[in-house]
Amino acid sequence: MSAKLIDGIGLLYTGDPAREEIADAAMVVEDGRVVWTGPAAEAPVADEREDAAGRCVIPGFVDSHAHLVFAGDRTAEFDARMSGQPYTAGGIRTTVAATRAASDAELATHAAALLAEMRRQGTTTVEIKSGYGLSVEDERRSLEIASGLVDETTYLGAHVVPAGVDADDYVRLVAGEMLAACAPYAKWVDVFCERGAFDGDQTREILTAGIKAGLLPRVHANQLTEGPGVRIAVELGAASADHCTHLSDADVDALASSGTVATLLPGAEFSTRSPYPDARRLIDAGATVAIATDCNPGSSFTSSMPFCVALAVREMRMTPLEAIRAATYGGARALRRDDVGVLRPGSRADYVTLDAPSYVHLAYRPGVPLVAAVSS
Amino acid sequence: MSAKLIDGIGLLYTGDPAREEIADAAMVVEDGRVVWTGPAAEAPVADEREDAAGRCVIPGFVDSHAHLVFAGDRTAEFDARMSGQPYTAGGIRTTVAATRAASDAELATHAAALLAEMRRQGTTTVEIKSGYGLSVEDERRSLEIASGLVDETTYLGAHVVPAGVDADDYVRLVAGEMLAACAPYAKWVDVFCERGAFDGDQTREILTAGIKAGLLPRVHANQLTEGPGVRIAVELGAASADHCTHLSDADVDALASSGTVATLLPGAEFSTRSPYPDARRLIDAGATVAIATDCNPGSSFTSSMPFCVALAVREMRMTPLEAIRAATYGGARALRRDDVGVLRPGSRADYVTLDAPSYVHLAYRPGVPLVAAVSS
Ligand SMILES: [Zn+2]
Ligand SMILES: [Zn+2]
Repeated sequence: MSAKLIDGIGLLYTGDPAREEIADAAMVVEDGRVVWTGPAAEAPVADEREDAAGRCVIPGFVDSHAHLVFAGDRTAEFDARMSGQPYTAGGIRTTVAATRAASDAELATHAAALLAEMRRQGTTTVEIKSGYGLSVEDERRSLEIASGLVDETTYLGAHVVPAGVDADDYVRLVAGEMLAACAPYAKWVDVFCERGAFDGDQTREILTAGIKAGLLPRVHANQLTEGPGVRIAVELGAASADHCTHLSDADVDALASSGTVATLLPGAEFSTRSPYPDARRLIDAGATVAIATDCNPGSSFTSSMPFCVALAVREMRMTPLEAIRAATYGGARALRRDDVGVLRPGSRADYVTLDAPSYVHLAYRPGVPLVAAVSS
Repeated sequence: MSAKLIDGIGLLYTGDPAREEIADAAMVVEDGRVVWTGPAAEAPVADEREDAAGRCVIPGFVDSHAHLVFAGDRTAEFDARMSGQPYTAGGIRTTVAATRAASDAELATHAAALLAEMRRQGTTTVEIKSGYGLSVEDERRSLEIASGLVDETTYLGAHVVPAGVDADDYVRLVAGEMLAACAPYAKWVDVFCERGAFDGDQTREILTAGIKAGLLPRVHANQLTEGPGVRIAVELGAASADHCTHLSDADVDALASSGTVATLLPGAEFSTRSPYPDARRLIDAGATVAIATDCNPGSSFTSSMPFCVALAVREMRMTPLEAIRAATYGGARALRRDDVGVLRPGSRADYVTLDAPSYVHLAYRPGVPLVAAVSS
């Protein structure tokens, strides 16, 4: 394949901490990889040339937290919640029942449609979790479907204890037979560590079993209460602790002095009218922060990384630079990936051309579809 | 032109208070007008047929408050504000200087691009204000350009007193020579009634002069402080009082018992990190509420009505139904239009097909581009 020069880039946001922004830039890609970035004036010649016409180019977004394998409709539940009306139907159990009843083809088609929607909004790397099957076979096929769509698949049998099942029995299943069935299709193991879901001991047991089965840990931690999730994530060397809405000073210190990324999911707080996590406190302490959509039908049905960037700036007091960094480089760190979320020689040529002169516009022009083109 | 039947509409939101929602609906359009709406099972035959495939159809959004005629870049100002950094450049004066320096063609091209962007997001009726010229000729040509693009044009010479000009002299100009030059191109007259802009007496003087010149009044009222703007708007029979962020009980009562619409602009509060207006209080009192983008480069550079609907639900405690109503029917009321913002026999066939089964998804799936098709 021939080399292509992308010229006339008004601003290149590279996501590379060593050289994060280049004004009046160019980039050369070849065989799906970046081979050169720098000032346009110093660009090498190439076989092909594309003109970015002064627009901003960024790495494709890395959405490191999404729940895309599900069926069923929870529109009425959202409508009732936001209208201040009582709603007594099943919440997550609605989704579990519908997911179990859906065919593989239905689940795959629906997940692929959400992935395509994400791509149109500039996301080129997506993590997909199981967690709406909650039986050995339904978790297994959820992950088989996910692994047919993306590289980053996460076993989340420990999403919630299914109705009518004893919690201890379920933990044994998740750490035993279900794990064995799911591990071939998963890279990651995750637990929703929260009051009403899985406690610290259960979380540790499941993650440890997952690690023994060759999976890498990540944790739904400290979303609703200041629980032990973040401490366990750091202790087990998890790539990411996700949500991080309710943190003690010790949690912040632990994140800051570890390789565990704090992944913030402001779409969830937006869609549940909850207080946002304090990104400033984490960044000022020195933690690495990612932002992701948490796309799921219950608590955050956005698939839009640009929307999450805008929320990160408005509601979590991140600067526009910190927000774009968290949505690209941060997401890649949360997946322990060096080849995405950055544009530098050797990285994947996953890039987005914005209909704007700067990534600042993702926050400055909230809600506006600014993705002009997606390459990957 | 032949009649077209749009069939298979999962949910038709009509915007018509008499019959606001029709499930499993159909609609017939002919010569750019709606001629029939109702249950699909009762639909008449038509020459042409289009299948909405279960999706939701809504009236095109009515964005009744936008400032689209301007030039210049204020990205750095936004970036500094959101990053908590001092910024001493000119604010609105930057835009005024750039607008004055721009050619007619530049201004028209830029405004048309923003209009096209709005249309892609489902907006089919837009009001455009002047207010970045602030000289007789620059206000006049701003409105001439606006009137070449939309029907709803608003003379806002009283946006701010330009640098180096005496306030009383400027009010005389706005109510005199500038008004005479602008009136042929404008339908509406508007004043930014606010501490630091125009006080109650100045507002009344300018609006009264505008009314005498054949224009209809609307007011930028009570955005930053609890000033006299809403009272004056109601007293003069304005179609709309816009912003309404800081209201006394008397203001709320005045709006509720008048034909003056309260137009809320949550994009401005989003982009300036300000407290949102209390839509619940207005709706519960019986006021008619509209939402609009306030699209402008200083305080709200969104062009997205879907984003404003999502904010209205999350931040202003409107129900999803109240928010879609405010973005369609409410906007039309704020422009005293009966032919847009609704889909009923006789109205314009301005409609949007959503990639979703319900308008609730505009709030349920924030940031996601859900506009599948726009017809008008
Ligand atoms: Zn999650
Ligand atoms: Zn305005």
